[in-house]
Amino acid sequence: MGYLPQKLLEKKLIALIEEDAAFGDVTSHLIPNKHIKAHITAKEAAILSGIEFCEILCQLFHIQTHSKYLDGTPINKGDTVLEMRGLSRDILLIERTALNLLMRLSGITTYTQSLVKLVKDAGLNIKIAATRKTTPGFRFFEKYAVEIGGGDTHRMNLSDTVLIKENHLKISKDVNIDNILRIAFEKTSFSKKIEIEVENLKEFQIALAYKPDIIMLDDFSIEMIQKALKSLEKLSIESRPLIEVSGGISDKNLKNYLINGIDIISIGSLTHSVKSIDFSLKIIPE
Amino acid sequence: MGYLPQKLLEKKLIALIEEDAAFGDVTSHLIPNKHIKAHITAKEAAILSGIEFCEILCQLFHIQTHSKYLDGTPINKGDTVLEMRGLSRDILLIERTALNLLMRLSGITTYTQSLVKLVKDAGLNIKIAATRKTTPGFRFFEKYAVEIGGGDTHRMNLSDTVLIKENHLKISKDVNIDNILRIAFEKTSFSKKIEIEVENLKEFQIALAYKPDIIMLDDFSIEMIQKALKSLEKLSIESRPLIEVSGGISDKNLKNYLINGIDIISIGSLTHSVKSIDFSLKIIPE
Amino acid sequence: MGYLPQKLLEKKLIALIEEDAAFGDVTSHLIPNKHIKAHITAKEAAILSGIEFCEILCQLFHIQTHSKYLDGTPINKGDTVLEMRGLSRDILLIERTALNLLMRLSGITTYTQSLVKLVKDAGLNIKIAATRKTTPGFRFFEKYAVEIGGGDTHRMNLSDTVLIKENHLKISKDVNIDNILRIAFEKTSFSKKIEIEVENLKEFQIALAYKPDIIMLDDFSIEMIQKALKSLEKLSIESRPLIEVSGGISDKNLKNYLINGIDIISIGSLTHSVKSIDFSLKIIPE
Amino acid sequence: MGYLPQKLLEKKLIALIEEDAAFGDVTSHLIPNKHIKAHITAKEAAILSGIEFCEILCQLFHIQTHSKYLDGTPINKGDTVLEMRGLSRDILLIERTALNLLMRLSGITTYTQSLVKLVKDAGLNIKIAATRKTTPGFRFFEKYAVEIGGGDTHRMNLSDTVLIKENHLKISKDVNIDNILRIAFEKTSFSKKIEIEVENLKEFQIALAYKPDIIMLDDFSIEMIQKALKSLEKLSIESRPLIEVSGGISDKNLKNYLINGIDIISIGSLTHSVKSIDFSLKIIPE
Amino acid sequence: MGYLPQKLLEKKLIALIEEDAAFGDVTSHLIPNKHIKAHITAKEAAILSGIEFCEILCQLFHIQTHSKYLDGTPINKGDTVLEMRGLSRDILLIERTALNLLMRLSGITTYTQSLVKLVKDAGLNIKIAATRKTTPGFRFFEKYAVEIGGGDTHRMNLSDTVLIKENHLKISKDVNIDNILRIAFEKTSFSKKIEIEVENLKEFQIALAYKPDIIMLDDFSIEMIQKALKSLEKLSIESRPLIEVSGGISDKNLKNYLINGIDIISIGSLTHSVKSIDFSLKIIPE
Amino acid sequence: MGYLPQKLLEKKLIALIEEDAAFGDVTSHLIPNKHIKAHITAKEAAILSGIEFCEILCQLFHIQTHSKYLDGTPINKGDTVLEMRGLSRDILLIERTALNLLMRLSGITTYTQSLVKLVKDAGLNIKIAATRKTTPGFRFFEKYAVEIGGGDTHRMNLSDTVLIKENHLKISKDVNIDNILRIAFEKTSFSKKIEIEVENLKEFQIALAYKPDIIMLDDFSIEMIQKALKSLEKLSIESRPLIEVSGGISDKNLKNYLINGIDIISIGSLTHSVKSIDFSLKIIPE
Repeated sequence: MGYLPQKLLEKKLIALIEEDAAFGDVTSHLIPNKHIKAHITAKEAAILSGIEFCEILCQLFHIQTHSKYLDGTPINKGDTVLEMRGLSRDILLIERTALNLLMRLSGITTYTQSLVKLVKDAGLNIKIAATRKTTPGFRFFEKYAVEIGGGDTHRMNLSDTVLIKENHLKISKDVNIDNILRIAFEKTSFSKKIEIEVENLKEFQIALAYKPDIIMLDDFSIEMIQKALKSLEKLSIESRPLIEVSGGISDKNLKNYLINGIDIISIGSLTHSVKSIDFSLKIIPE
Repeated sequence: MGYLPQKLLEKKLIALIEEDAAFGDVTSHLIPNKHIKAHITAKEAAILSGIEFCEILCQLFHIQTHSKYLDGTPINKGDTVLEMRGLSRDILLIERTALNLLMRLSGITTYTQSLVKLVKDAGLNIKIAATRKTTPGFRFFEKYAVEIGGGDTHRMNLSDTVLIKENHLKISKDVNIDNILRIAFEKTSFSKKIEIEVENLKEFQIALAYKPDIIMLDDFSIEMIQKALKSLEKLSIESRPLIEVSGGISDKNLKNYLINGIDIISIGSLTHSVKSIDFSLKIIPE
Repeated sequence: MGYLPQKLLEKKLIALIEEDAAFGDVTSHLIPNKHIKAHITAKEAAILSGIEFCEILCQLFHIQTHSKYLDGTPINKGDTVLEMRGLSRDILLIERTALNLLMRLSGITTYTQSLVKLVKDAGLNIKIAATRKTTPGFRFFEKYAVEIGGGDTHRMNLSDTVLIKENHLKISKDVNIDNILRIAFEKTSFSKKIEIEVENLKEFQIALAYKPDIIMLDDFSIEMIQKALKSLEKLSIESRPLIEVSGGISDKNLKNYLINGIDIISIGSLTHSVKSIDFSLKIIPE
Repeated sequence: MGYLPQKLLEKKLIALIEEDAAFGDVTSHLIPNKHIKAHITAKEAAILSGIEFCEILCQLFHIQTHSKYLDGTPINKGDTVLEMRGLSRDILLIERTALNLLMRLSGITTYTQSLVKLVKDAGLNIKIAATRKTTPGFRFFEKYAVEIGGGDTHRMNLSDTVLIKENHLKISKDVNIDNILRIAFEKTSFSKKIEIEVENLKEFQIALAYKPDIIMLDDFSIEMIQKALKSLEKLSIESRPLIEVSGGISDKNLKNYLINGIDIISIGSLTHSVKSIDFSLKIIPE
Repeated sequence: MGYLPQKLLEKKLIALIEEDAAFGDVTSHLIPNKHIKAHITAKEAAILSGIEFCEILCQLFHIQTHSKYLDGTPINKGDTVLEMRGLSRDILLIERTALNLLMRLSGITTYTQSLVKLVKDAGLNIKIAATRKTTPGFRFFEKYAVEIGGGDTHRMNLSDTVLIKENHLKISKDVNIDNILRIAFEKTSFSKKIEIEVENLKEFQIALAYKPDIIMLDDFSIEMIQKALKSLEKLSIESRPLIEVSGGISDKNLKNYLINGIDIISIGSLTHSVKSIDFSLKIIPE
Repeated sequence: MGYLPQKLLEKKLIALIEEDAAFGDVTSHLIPNKHIKAHITAKEAAILSGIEFCEILCQLFHIQTHSKYLDGTPINKGDTVLEMRGLSRDILLIERTALNLLMRLSGITTYTQSLVKLVKDAGLNIKIAATRKTTPGFRFFEKYAVEIGGGDTHRMNLSDTVLIKENHLKISKDVNIDNILRIAFEKTSFSKKIEIEVENLKEFQIALAYKPDIIMLDDFSIEMIQKALKSLEKLSIESRPLIEVSGGISDKNLKNYLINGIDIISIGSLTHSVKSIDFSLKIIPE
């Protein structure tokens, strides 16, 4: 996702605090506002993610932070991932938001990284990619966590990349792979890639002739994938589109798809069904 | 959560479309803009949730909708939960956002309802409650899904209910359960409830003397919970605070906590680790 | 209202400056931009309120401030409540917004505190509470001023506390106090209080049987209030709901309502008809 | 203030609903959502103001309205100023916001109109003008109410009109009425008026020589005002600036200032210390 | 740019009205609010652009519209491009904003189309592309106008396409075309294209070896361009990157660049120095 | 436009960065983030404008700046107008937005100043004024650039000044210059000026009788202008309205309008058809 402008991150993070404390924290003000220390600690092993957002959040509330870790670092149960010093009310104010970010993002990063590792262990060079099946309003952060885990963000939104799907072809009898790809090349900015989803080998062959940047094999059986890949062999490397497979792939069946020649495996559950990693914040008694 | 103002929902939903299509949909415009029909279909059994938000989203884009289901209805695999008629580009524009809402909210509602059912099947009257461990920026919708599943939203944010936790007591040596509860009753609006989290039976007894509205037994063993409940028996029903238990409870161990006398069981995984329910949108060929 | 996140306050305060200077200050730029001192001085005795918001506002525009007073302090005519040092154009830019905040909030706090004092002087422990009759868009600040004056904010908004009013009961013939209270206990989060407004003693008795957290006696005569309180005496202290009285109460007739047994007196004029306290800002000639 | 764009009003009104119901109305949803009628009724005589905003607010929530009155109409105690038909939850959702608008705006309009009437009854042609002493964030509505009451809004904000005040002259020893007025004419857009506040007759004479559009006599005694007016008599009508008087003027002493030759009397209390007019909304039982 | 969500367009258009009429139109309300007709007429020949935004703007203010033209249509001096019927105050409210949109967008579209025509007339298939040299805050509309004129939007923003420029290579001595292109392929989502700007033929050869999607020849002389194109001839069509030329190209010298083999010519003046097309709105007397 | 509140400028500038980098800069993060120097250099002679906005933009991203120039200073080709030191990713992030601001604003300022100079060289005291023909959403900056060039912003928006135009008079047969001017004086705040546009000498005479603050001679021939000016001669200086001429005036024919007695010449092309000034940002190799 590249370099994220801090001022935009700050705006996003303040909106999250607003969600949690629009009319103030009715508990912490019952207690004197003391300079304290606090630690955020991992309650399970994980690949850390979101710690850099937490540090910006702390800065916004004048909380000094120290962390030995960057996003993407493996951590163990019990590791203190963030040390904080600031006023007690400020630390308690951001506590839940910071933890919620860490928990989800580390969950996504850890899961992504485990799948990326399977690929690497198989000696392959296949990208594990996210989809647009993200939590509404939180996509920015979820795609970031996928990237930190070594995954590919895939397109961020509908404006990013042309992706012609099965539903597009059903809109009218007059629409077919041939004419939609022809129009796509005509009407799309040269700065964008063009991808098409195909449902069977016949569609694959038709699409191939147009040399789109990417062809997505949707819900193909392993056998069908292999046939498709075989038909690519005749082509020179330069004229091959990237091959993405998708449809019902998760950690449970990923191994079946670790086939040489596939370029991308996209997996909705990277973002749609995440197990959070548990973290807790503890105030350090003086 | 009560009655949600449609105009505020519309604003939230438009922000979600903005996340996905700020510079337009670069694919759907390649195809003529036709009046079409489309169906959203469940790909697994679930308790439906979010369908009412989808209908408002459709209205915003002049898509007519028909659904036999309300939020909270059980649905089966293959059920068409929403029929839509509108322009193809509008339907494709909102497709992913609508599905993302349905997938997550139905996931949360289905999981919540399964836990609520365990309680009911045990003939008990215990509320299954969410926590603030929600996806940043998406809490509104997640708490809604918990409520639709028969769960309790618990407090929406830091401004809602006083909840004194372990960390509050660690801020200063001068703070203890006695003085913080005394101050809480003094300084808190009569319109809000006061809850305190206790870590052991001694703290429980101290807190009990102040009659807070709710006492949360944090990470109590079953034995400790039973002791705490026993000590409540001497009190008249009116003077008993509500008893909430929390800490590491999920579908895996909920049964152990189905103990008469507990009023609320709060479960972070209702919202922090959700398995989405799969739905798909299909355009109906003419 | 608890601890207010500074970043959210800053956002609110910048919006107020935007109201006054969206296209700049067309007067102050006619004069050289000098480092100056300025004082805000009270033109009448009051309980100060809003000074902490003014200091944040000054910080936002790089104006150094010094004040001997905190919100809630009594001040006399002529007291300098804020000393400022900064660039003349910045001080003139925020002058009116700062004064407008101070004038209204000190007005509300001073009036609230005068009523709270009447209660205390009578040796009673009755809360003087605000209502939702606040200036649209400015409620956050007005409720704050009530709290600083020793009053109770009452619910901040429709999402805070269940409050069943006369109008709710008129919606349908099938709705009555019995069934609405039963449903309220069923459907409302345990984290929220339930209050009901009653119009007469009969309604009061019906409501009482359900033990709502609070019963509001709306427009009750003194005699009726006394009868209601008498019927509470039979109940144990724990099973008594809080009693709120409301309806046409102001500084003019408050004394009549200083009756032992009342818990809360809510007064719309705390926020709907406020006399501002006069303050002025003077630049100190070198 | 001219013609207010409805879409901008809608945005402002939705923000007000957001203040009151960000997480929904937790009470009205306990009751079936019925088609009902409701009336807003004046509880005291007044000049009505804000009714047109209420009607737009109703439209936004699909509530049909009927009113016999326009903003600016005198109404009596008991008059039904708005009849509404819609869903009970929608009517209850906007109730408080609608009443809060009506109460404050009618308060301001009624007070303004009473002062305007004093002027007219004296057979004079003096404008009663508001100041910028408005409730932060609510100025738009308050200035509107002044205008409806026959008053003059005066400048809406710091960008509207040049107004050189005492504080401007104190910024530097090098600044005086002469050079600041000279610079003002040089640097100010021809599309804006230039006004200067003077503290005494000497300053008045200096200012007069520059023919600013308006001279404000600040805290002038009646005698001083008369002297100032006398010195204008020598000037031709065209070359006279408008004369505004201000400083501690309210309904209590306005009569003293009803002097032929004064063009404008500006009065902070029009907006800073308003007594709201009481209105109530009643649901009409079927 | 694809299909633009109407609700997002509405939000953008309302913001534009807010810029022009935040406190209302102080002129049109002086006159009765009548149902009127009005025409927008071209005062010079052009390619029309922005008319569809004007129609949405009209809808927002309940103005009925009729137009014989779509964006992209050639129009002549005197052509009525939009007929409107609505209330006079609404038409006058949006008049200037509608005209400002039409004037700029038609200016950009007309200029773009004139350059596109030069290319077509030369029998070539070169895209005329915009740059990011757009008016801050108005890029969305300007890129749209380029597209309507037959041009290519090029990347919408920094998040769209990787584009390595001369400045990137100067950041550190350790950075060169070789390693930055290698890293770019590694770290960039497969869904995005990678482009590199080269300053001379040597850089071009280095870049070519990495087969980026696009190579931009920055400020190349015609001779250098021809040499670069010649070296591409050895490559198979599939393995050729797209060739973009840029740097000081405008209508004045475009002809020199109409060289077979160039794929894209990007031209900053498409958006940074636009001559507006003149339109006027006339109310049609009854 | 007076003194612009920095916090509001910051908000505007952050919105511009958001337009360009909502999902981050996908290029600069491929390269190590180094402390670097960079220069912005003029590629042609101009009057500099926008440099102060660039400095605020730099501050927001922790980039230190140094400039020898203020807005309004003449610069030559090759002049370094801004020296920057900061992290490479931050400098590249803001590069395009900063340059886009400088290019447009310097273009407007330079063009305005050239016209202002023509007036001065003719020994006249005529203001060159902008119109509301600005880029939607960017007016604030464009009017600023006009002012820096020595021009007059004219009214900022529809709320600023009453300006009765030809279209107003066509709304109804019952509307004419007489009654609309009478109403305008009655209904308009004394703090605003009243201007009327006239189409011919007859209208001019009618308008003159009402002594509006300004009369705009729309599309008058030179001869008609001279007749109008002649008829003013009989009036005392104080009772003369300001005379604005407008309609098709640009640098090409301005000389014809340099007539003694004209107060303002308003020129749409100051903002609607601007040639940007070219600037570039270069990173300085170590």
